[in-house]
Amino acid sequence: MNSVTSQLSMSLDGFVAGPHQSAEDPLGKGGERLHEWAFGTDTWRAQQGLDGGVHSVDAEVFEEVTQGVGAYIMGRNMFGGGHGPWDETWKGWWGEDPPYHAPVFVLTHQARDPLPMRGGTTFHFVTDGINSALEQARTAAGDTDVAIAGGAQAVQQYLTAGLLDELYLHIVPVLLGAGERLLQNVGDPTLEPVKVTASPAATHVKYRVTYR
Amino acid sequence: MNSVTSQLSMSLDGFVAGPHQSAEDPLGKGGERLHEWAFGTDTWRAQQGLDGGVHSVDAEVFEEVTQGVGAYIMGRNMFGGGHGPWDETWKGWWGEDPPYHAPVFVLTHQARDPLPMRGGTTFHFVTDGINSALEQARTAAGDTDVAIAGGAQAVQQYLTAGLLDELYLHIVPVLLGAGERLLQNVGDPTLEPVKVTASPAATHVKYRVTYR
Repeated sequence: MNSVTSQLSMSLDGFVAGPHQSAEDPLGKGGERLHEWAFGTDTWRAQQGLDGGVHSVDAEVFEEVTQGVGAYIMGRNMFGGGHGPWDETWKGWWGEDPPYHAPVFVLTHQARDPLPMRGGTTFHFVTDGINSALEQARTAAGDTDVAIAGGAQAVQQYLTAGLLDELYLHIVPVLLGAGERLLQNVGDPTLEPVKVTASPAATHVKYRVTYR
Repeated sequence: MNSVTSQLSMSLDGFVAGPHQSAEDPLGKGGERLHEWAFGTDTWRAQQGLDGGVHSVDAEVFEEVTQGVGAYIMGRNMFGGGHGPWDETWKGWWGEDPPYHAPVFVLTHQARDPLPMRGGTTFHFVTDGINSALEQARTAAGDTDVAIAGGAQAVQQYLTAGLLDELYLHIVPVLLGAGERLLQNVGDPTLEPVKVTASPAATHVKYRVTYR
């Protein structure tokens, strides 16, 4: 069966987004610092349709974590944020050609028709919970993996339910001081580091997750 | 000049001790899980005067972090805990032969005569603040390093004051859920990973610390 994975950039003090997130600043104050390890790499640039960049160990990790994923799951804030129901014309904040290039299942309370975007991404809105979203994502992914894209709350829900098989953390040497904390209220799963890649920009640790 | 270092075992969710610390359980609930990476190693056993153990990469890290330190600084709780003044007969909870084998400067409000123990450890009680403790420790250390032994609050004070040069974290793949959090209220120093050693038991990351 396909694996359920999640890869996230986390500050050394445990945050996956900075404080004061908003529609204008979805990563929160300082949150873009969490992703700088990827920005200069050739593999990240290629994903954005850009030439150039450096082929560093960070580039290899970025390539590794974005390969082999056949479907994504994300929380409503990560799709499009805001309070209350979305206007049916709101296509989220990923632009016309989102970087997923695969079906994306959005956990929400608002029923909507599927929203096809350019480049192979289609957003599907799932209103009947995380198990249903996972079942639909598994079917869509076939033999490939399902990735929980975020945010923290979605990852926490899958960890708490014992459904996440792999957590790939990019531990970034910055202290945000506040923001969206990843590892809280998730019980006590068994984490086993199975691969570590170090660079000056991040320490990438892939954990296999099992449950007692 | 000698460096000011600190090496600590931290859970992946950021705690250096578990909840409900007490005289009977100074590491808090689950806190001993943070140190298991060291326990089986030959270098840890040798420090305790024991034979045997495994010479793993964890053993090499343990040897590295305990070499070259000429003086230690610790908070009052790490020396001997409790509330209110200590009885003058209280020698802390490190036993007759503490594992420091060097002068240890204890940050406290209670003036006491120096307390010599077996094996070269002498506890000195410093009542006039972290700068005074560091000055005395530097003098005692000569050309060797000064280590902030803990707990979290002492390390936070030296980080906040811009006095810590190196933070060596053993990032342990456990989630404690609660306890004594290390990296909070320490501002935004620049952390640069300069050495990473991976094992199944911990990801050891040495950070050089500088200040803006």
